[in-house]
Amino acid sequence: MHSDAAQDSRDSPEGSRIVIDTGLLSPVTVGHDHAVSDAVFAIALIRAELALTQAWAELDIAPEAAAIGFEQTFGVDAAGALGAGFERLDLAELVERSVAGGNPVIPLVGMLRAGVPEGAREWVHRGATSQDILDTALMLFARDAGFEVLAHLVEIDEALTAFAAEHRDQTAAARTLTQHAVPTTLGLRAANWAQGVDRAALKLDEALAQLPVQLAGAGGTLASFVQISGAASAEALPDVYAEILGLAIPDGAWHTVRWPVTELGEALAQAIGALGRIAADVATLSRTEIGELAEGSGGGSSAMPQKRNPVGSVLIRSAAIRAPHLAATLHAAAGLFVDERPDGAWHAEWQTLRELLRLALGAAGNAAELVSGLRVDSDAVERNLALTGGLIVAERISLVLGPIIGAERVAEIVAAAGRGADLAALLRAEPGLEGTGIDIADLLDPAGYTGLAGVLVDRVTNAREADE
Amino acid sequence: MHSDAAQDSRDSPEGSRIVIDTGLLSPVTVGHDHAVSDAVFAIALIRAELALTQAWAELDIAPEAAAIGFEQTFGVDAAGALGAGFERLDLAELVERSVAGGNPVIPLVGMLRAGVPEGAREWVHRGATSQDILDTALMLFARDAGFEVLAHLVEIDEALTAFAAEHRDQTAAARTLTQHAVPTTLGLRAANWAQGVDRAALKLDEALAQLPVQLAGAGGTLASFVQISGAASAEALPDVYAEILGLAIPDGAWHTVRWPVTELGEALAQAIGALGRIAADVATLSRTEIGELAEGSGGGSSAMPQKRNPVGSVLIRSAAIRAPHLAATLHAAAGLFVDERPDGAWHAEWQTLRELLRLALGAAGNAAELVSGLRVDSDAVERNLALTGGLIVAERISLVLGPIIGAERVAEIVAAAGRGADLAALLRAEPGLEGTGIDIADLLDPAGYTGLAGVLVDRVTNAREADE
Amino acid sequence: MHSDAAQDSRDSPEGSRIVIDTGLLSPVTVGHDHAVSDAVFAIALIRAELALTQAWAELDIAPEAAAIGFEQTFGVDAAGALGAGFERLDLAELVERSVAGGNPVIPLVGMLRAGVPEGAREWVHRGATSQDILDTALMLFARDAGFEVLAHLVEIDEALTAFAAEHRDQTAAARTLTQHAVPTTLGLRAANWAQGVDRAALKLDEALAQLPVQLAGAGGTLASFVQISGAASAEALPDVYAEILGLAIPDGAWHTVRWPVTELGEALAQAIGALGRIAADVATLSRTEIGELAEGSGGGSSAMPQKRNPVGSVLIRSAAIRAPHLAATLHAAAGLFVDERPDGAWHAEWQTLRELLRLALGAAGNAAELVSGLRVDSDAVERNLALTGGLIVAERISLVLGPIIGAERVAEIVAAAGRGADLAALLRAEPGLEGTGIDIADLLDPAGYTGLAGVLVDRVTNAREADE
Amino acid sequence: MHSDAAQDSRDSPEGSRIVIDTGLLSPVTVGHDHAVSDAVFAIALIRAELALTQAWAELDIAPEAAAIGFEQTFGVDAAGALGAGFERLDLAELVERSVAGGNPVIPLVGMLRAGVPEGAREWVHRGATSQDILDTALMLFARDAGFEVLAHLVEIDEALTAFAAEHRDQTAAARTLTQHAVPTTLGLRAANWAQGVDRAALKLDEALAQLPVQLAGAGGTLASFVQISGAASAEALPDVYAEILGLAIPDGAWHTVRWPVTELGEALAQAIGALGRIAADVATLSRTEIGELAEGSGGGSSAMPQKRNPVGSVLIRSAAIRAPHLAATLHAAAGLFVDERPDGAWHAEWQTLRELLRLALGAAGNAAELVSGLRVDSDAVERNLALTGGLIVAERISLVLGPIIGAERVAEIVAAAGRGADLAALLRAEPGLEGTGIDIADLLDPAGYTGLAGVLVDRVTNAREADE
Repeated sequence: MHSDAAQDSRDSPEGSRIVIDTGLLSPVTVGHDHAVSDAVFAIALIRAELALTQAWAELDIAPEAAAIGFEQTFGVDAAGALGAGFERLDLAELVERSVAGGNPVIPLVGMLRAGVPEGAREWVHRGATSQDILDTALMLFARDAGFEVLAHLVEIDEALTAFAAEHRDQTAAARTLTQHAVPTTLGLRAANWAQGVDRAALKLDEALAQLPVQLAGAGGTLASFVQISGAASAEALPDVYAEILGLAIPDGAWHTVRWPVTELGEALAQAIGALGRIAADVATLSRTEIGELAEGSGGGSSAMPQKRNPVGSVLIRSAAIRAPHLAATLHAAAGLFVDERPDGAWHAEWQTLRELLRLALGAAGNAAELVSGLRVDSDAVERNLALTGGLIVAERISLVLGPIIGAERVAEIVAAAGRGADLAALLRAEPGLEGTGIDIADLLDPAGYTGLAGVLVDRVTNAREADE
Repeated sequence: MHSDAAQDSRDSPEGSRIVIDTGLLSPVTVGHDHAVSDAVFAIALIRAELALTQAWAELDIAPEAAAIGFEQTFGVDAAGALGAGFERLDLAELVERSVAGGNPVIPLVGMLRAGVPEGAREWVHRGATSQDILDTALMLFARDAGFEVLAHLVEIDEALTAFAAEHRDQTAAARTLTQHAVPTTLGLRAANWAQGVDRAALKLDEALAQLPVQLAGAGGTLASFVQISGAASAEALPDVYAEILGLAIPDGAWHTVRWPVTELGEALAQAIGALGRIAADVATLSRTEIGELAEGSGGGSSAMPQKRNPVGSVLIRSAAIRAPHLAATLHAAAGLFVDERPDGAWHAEWQTLRELLRLALGAAGNAAELVSGLRVDSDAVERNLALTGGLIVAERISLVLGPIIGAERVAEIVAAAGRGADLAALLRAEPGLEGTGIDIADLLDPAGYTGLAGVLVDRVTNAREADE
Repeated sequence: MHSDAAQDSRDSPEGSRIVIDTGLLSPVTVGHDHAVSDAVFAIALIRAELALTQAWAELDIAPEAAAIGFEQTFGVDAAGALGAGFERLDLAELVERSVAGGNPVIPLVGMLRAGVPEGAREWVHRGATSQDILDTALMLFARDAGFEVLAHLVEIDEALTAFAAEHRDQTAAARTLTQHAVPTTLGLRAANWAQGVDRAALKLDEALAQLPVQLAGAGGTLASFVQISGAASAEALPDVYAEILGLAIPDGAWHTVRWPVTELGEALAQAIGALGRIAADVATLSRTEIGELAEGSGGGSSAMPQKRNPVGSVLIRSAAIRAPHLAATLHAAAGLFVDERPDGAWHAEWQTLRELLRLALGAAGNAAELVSGLRVDSDAVERNLALTGGLIVAERISLVLGPIIGAERVAEIVAAAGRGADLAALLRAEPGLEGTGIDIADLLDPAGYTGLAGVLVDRVTNAREADE
Repeated sequence: MHSDAAQDSRDSPEGSRIVIDTGLLSPVTVGHDHAVSDAVFAIALIRAELALTQAWAELDIAPEAAAIGFEQTFGVDAAGALGAGFERLDLAELVERSVAGGNPVIPLVGMLRAGVPEGAREWVHRGATSQDILDTALMLFARDAGFEVLAHLVEIDEALTAFAAEHRDQTAAARTLTQHAVPTTLGLRAANWAQGVDRAALKLDEALAQLPVQLAGAGGTLASFVQISGAASAEALPDVYAEILGLAIPDGAWHTVRWPVTELGEALAQAIGALGRIAADVATLSRTEIGELAEGSGGGSSAMPQKRNPVGSVLIRSAAIRAPHLAATLHAAAGLFVDERPDGAWHAEWQTLRELLRLALGAAGNAAELVSGLRVDSDAVERNLALTGGLIVAERISLVLGPIIGAERVAEIVAAAGRGADLAALLRAEPGLEGTGIDIADLLDPAGYTGLAGVLVDRVTNAREADE
């Protein structure tokens, strides 16, 4: 099958070998996605195989020399550090040969065995099934990329918390269903954004800490390991393996019970969603007519210099539109797993999880830049707040004046203002308010109707300080 | 808008009022979905409103009589118990009037105020925004339905654990990519199923325990509450409110930070996926040619009595195909929230979350019946295990005989057996094995190559015992 | 299985019988969704059964009296008209009994046979499999609901075309990436909206016209029909059946080849998307700061009378967020069909297609109201157009003045204007333009830079006239 | 923004430049996906720009030399042929610089202008907006890849039609809900598969034929083109442009009306679904216990030589699980388009459409190999058909004997057979059948109960012949 792939690849416009995707159609991820490249995944595969040989050696089943020989050959250690030797793996050939058996582990094992010293040969992939290696590599790959995402989330949370503290008391219009509703503060809006990011970081951290190795053999029984080394060593093997790789020890085989994949997918979707929600606000508040926020490095346009395109927000939003569908693909696959290895659902996970990690890296990388450079146009904030001529505190007027002049009279006044009358003047002329001592200017001041906004900001900033 | 809705509804084939969906197109949920009906949601809305009045009373801002009067009128208490009075709420009218403002809270408040005693009137919905009530009601509704799902998951886990213990050592074929691979045990397969269900139960329990009230006013600042009662009472209000309803106290307003919704959606999708994964196995292993499992109450067919349709599995799988798309809808919405209340994303959550809860109830209800009635045809298990004439332990033969007669010779023998030769005879005739004392019958016995299957089953059964 | 469903339903808060969903959580569909209620689907099931008996009678295999007796009993004719008798079908019982066999046809056949006159009994469901009836009913149901959607789309297209003609030359800001870019016209914007709706109507019309009957028996071979009546009559039967019901004759059994379902799902998603796209613009252009458009019946708020919530747009957008996931569910199911009737994928379609039809009805119904009532605030349009002080025609300035004073000089001027300088004054003072006769006011007039906007509007309005 | 991207890329394990995805995690697409690589997309971008210059020249607005100079520089012609010069475009640099403005057109224009001869410079990108070029390139790219998919579909349809003709009368078990139901034929099953593929090919062909150019300028009004050349030339320009590129002329700007994208996405999802449906059957019928079908080049396993993994089916199914989510992403984006270019939805399309094209190429390429090599094990087909001891024709027994001995008596006999009794013996001993002349062997012969299977196969084969 596919015997012509190697030849075909030579006909590609790139010259000699297959190069599908370098990011040209995915600007949100460019510059952020090294951690999920095929080369990094190939390294993860080698790490998963190397660690198995090392685990055998630690249990004194394999000679230590086998592990050392393996490690020295390909320039990869179990922790992922890269030395000389990795170039021995012909990635394009690995890709081409991955098709026949449906996964890259089968050809990889051949390539590794051909490469390692004689004494290490039999200990390569010893007792394992290809799903053991592929799933373990997927977890290594996901963990490393996931921690990069997490680092960005922490950075974003810090920037937002600082922004919230800085703008703690800056009153601005709150909008519901696109309309000015009541006042809020810039600080509270940013604190809310931070809450979403903080929650996403918490969940991602939890998910990453629980990513397990896979090591259970062809049917999930560890029978091959028992056959090779006896039951006691076979029982110990997954624990040693997990320790070498810094992954969690699984409850059992998760060949067909895919929560490690779906929970990670979920955490990534949640993170991208939390960032998408910020980008939605930044894009909206950057509109020409609103202009309250601007990205620090808004994309320009030579022909249309008036434009300050919120490019970061646009890119992050593109990720937020795509990510839910990728996370759903992982769930769809999980619910279709059958037998001890399924007939398609497993294969559906790989590229999907990679693309989701990639989007998370891109969205988080862009968001880190965005929030650190976010600029406020305080004049625009003020101008917009005044747009409704005081009606932005209509709710307050009802609450304060309703008991005095009656809800119906308040409604009449407010309706008149809604039609264009001067609200302050109407209130000042209102007979029922004479002698009540109510200061109309105070009543209409949006800054006087921000409730607990400051307190809510402080909760967020204090919680972050407490974490440190 | 929609002024004709009331009239239209009288023209529906049902006679007088709108009845859209009673389950006719959703057999997986029939009999399991009371917890998510519109009436239950209407009750949740009333509970959310009632609890607000009660919270005001507990803080001595409202008179206690207001809360008592409210509670007595509609026959609903904050805990959801239903007495006489609920019929005072005209559900069809509420539905019809929910369109104009885009949500049912606006007309509900009018109906409640018209219904409660005079002194309670002003304390209905006091200071709240419709999102406060709708979100809180959604959480109440989701929590109650979610705990029903959880109870089913626990029941399923127990049944599977018992099944695993009972069939701990019953050897059966493990299949990968549809093909017999190596032996496993029925016990281990069920233990793996149980692991998926147990994990899903854990995550659902976590999600349910964190479902928060919403109470922050029109812009998320609690300004109206501060205006009504001062800052101290306003700060205390959400805590009191949460305690009355038994929901969690939120970090802050989550009007636009939707992790409570997406995390719950995720937990439900995970639960349905874990059940779908079981159903996939049961449906497959019930195939006429395989016949290892049968549902206790397989659907019959009068015309085709040979059929034992795995109807429960089929229905559960239908839920597993649908659920990921619903969970994704919640993520899609979360990433599109904008402003202090968004322009569509919030409204997209309601029916989606309801349908996801409904599917979870249906899948879990059906799965509880399925696993409790699951029957094993041990003859079929044996017959299938023998289908490959011993090749199901080919991996073991390689491991044991490879070092003795060489991997190539093993491969030749195994290949000959693959073409139909008698494997045992070939091995008994193999010159290289003479005098090795290897018992060919033992070597070929699948029961001798199940590795740690029993140990892995025990881990699951012991863990469940430890939980008790 | 589920023997307690009937009893359970009596415990539901509704009083006596199951009522899950009347629209309370789905305001976008309230008042628009009669066509997809369970009762209408039950009628479609009866129609599908009735038409089969009628087809047998038309082919002179069954006595005509059998068809007449059947028709008279349940008050439903093949065209869907409803007379006395439908109440004989106990819908709640049908729902409850649909679970055991996994679909409602099995109990329905029993109920119909019990109801029809003796001579008709054996001709009820004669030779059919339950999938024949359920799929045919689904197509009937979908066609009727689909034509309701289509009627709305045509109405919307007409309203938009009229709006486009009316505002053909009203210049307004075009926005890209949230920023003012160049001028356009309100007419062109509406004409573009109309193009999307017109295309969706075309595709929906095509899909509806191709919805086929299903009639092929248990294995898709029509063997039962051949057994009953011989090959010639069996060959003729599907054609007669299709003619009675006004559906298309299928190429063959589509028991497992599901393009009729996915193509319809797709057309509905496209329709909802085209409406969502309009709603996105209306919601945005209704923002307090922009204010160019307003819905005719914007939702008010008693506490915040300044708000003109674009409720219709919000509801339509909620449908546009949800619909893609439902259409995807249909595709996911289609790709998983296996055997001659699958183990879950078929069942996943029913409720999904219903909900998608329901959303389409709701989105289209709301959109019809929205576009017919859409109001323009021409002052706001003018004000916004002037916001950038002429820079909205910066592209034109480059094109016109670049060749005269050089692109760099243009860029300098435009950049200065971007920083707040008076663009017209700068240009008037520009030495290089002296004596060129260029009228700066003309150059900066947005109305002079709308290109072919009018022509493009005319194409749309002319195309519609040509259609009539 | 992203100033370190270039440097970062040098740190990637690949050595010097970013290469994310060569297929390692996507075995279904390896060897089939050249048509959707970034280099091909870069060529499409150049083609879109080149054709614009050529269109200007054809209209005598630009000098012909400008078009010739441009064409000669980069070794790409409008038809996509590749000569010397393409290497002048530094793809990695293009990728890196695509981030700042959010799309690759902005830096590409700079690179092209720097590369072409002086006289061509001003005609590069003349009057266009980046969306014009990107959308047009996307259509070119999609059309070329789409036609590759279509060619595979036609090939698959032919192979299936031949297979159906060859196995026209080979009786086999039809299965519903996993259980043997009635007989069918291998020919009819393949003919049904072919119907799905044929329909998908028809829809894909329609979609490809309608893919339009985009050429409408920054706001969709063509104002820049009018400014440059006057209204008449501007009106003609899109038509000339479309003709040069062999794409359709759009009704108007589709900057924000995205049916060309969603309809193509839909056609691709339908194609992948039709192939997934075949793969589901092949994987199932290849099961060890069923064994009716085998892939020509089933993946082997050195350790488990008994396995004949249906690898092609597994890979195709992985695509069928993923594709609906990608098609849904395109719909989700389409429904969120806003303004004259949206704030994220457009960017969400690019990578999604590419991945969907890629999956379609991979699924179709693998399916072409699969169906051309499909092998039937006729012994297994026979063996399975006999598994139910004649009960596979239970429906026929009811139809034939019911009128003679009564439905109840038939049910008793059939039930007894279902419990293991010899059906033929029971029937031969049945007193009521004495003297009826019914040949029990004939009655029980599955080949006698295949209805119109042969006729239905002939319809498909004849339709294909008529097409030729």
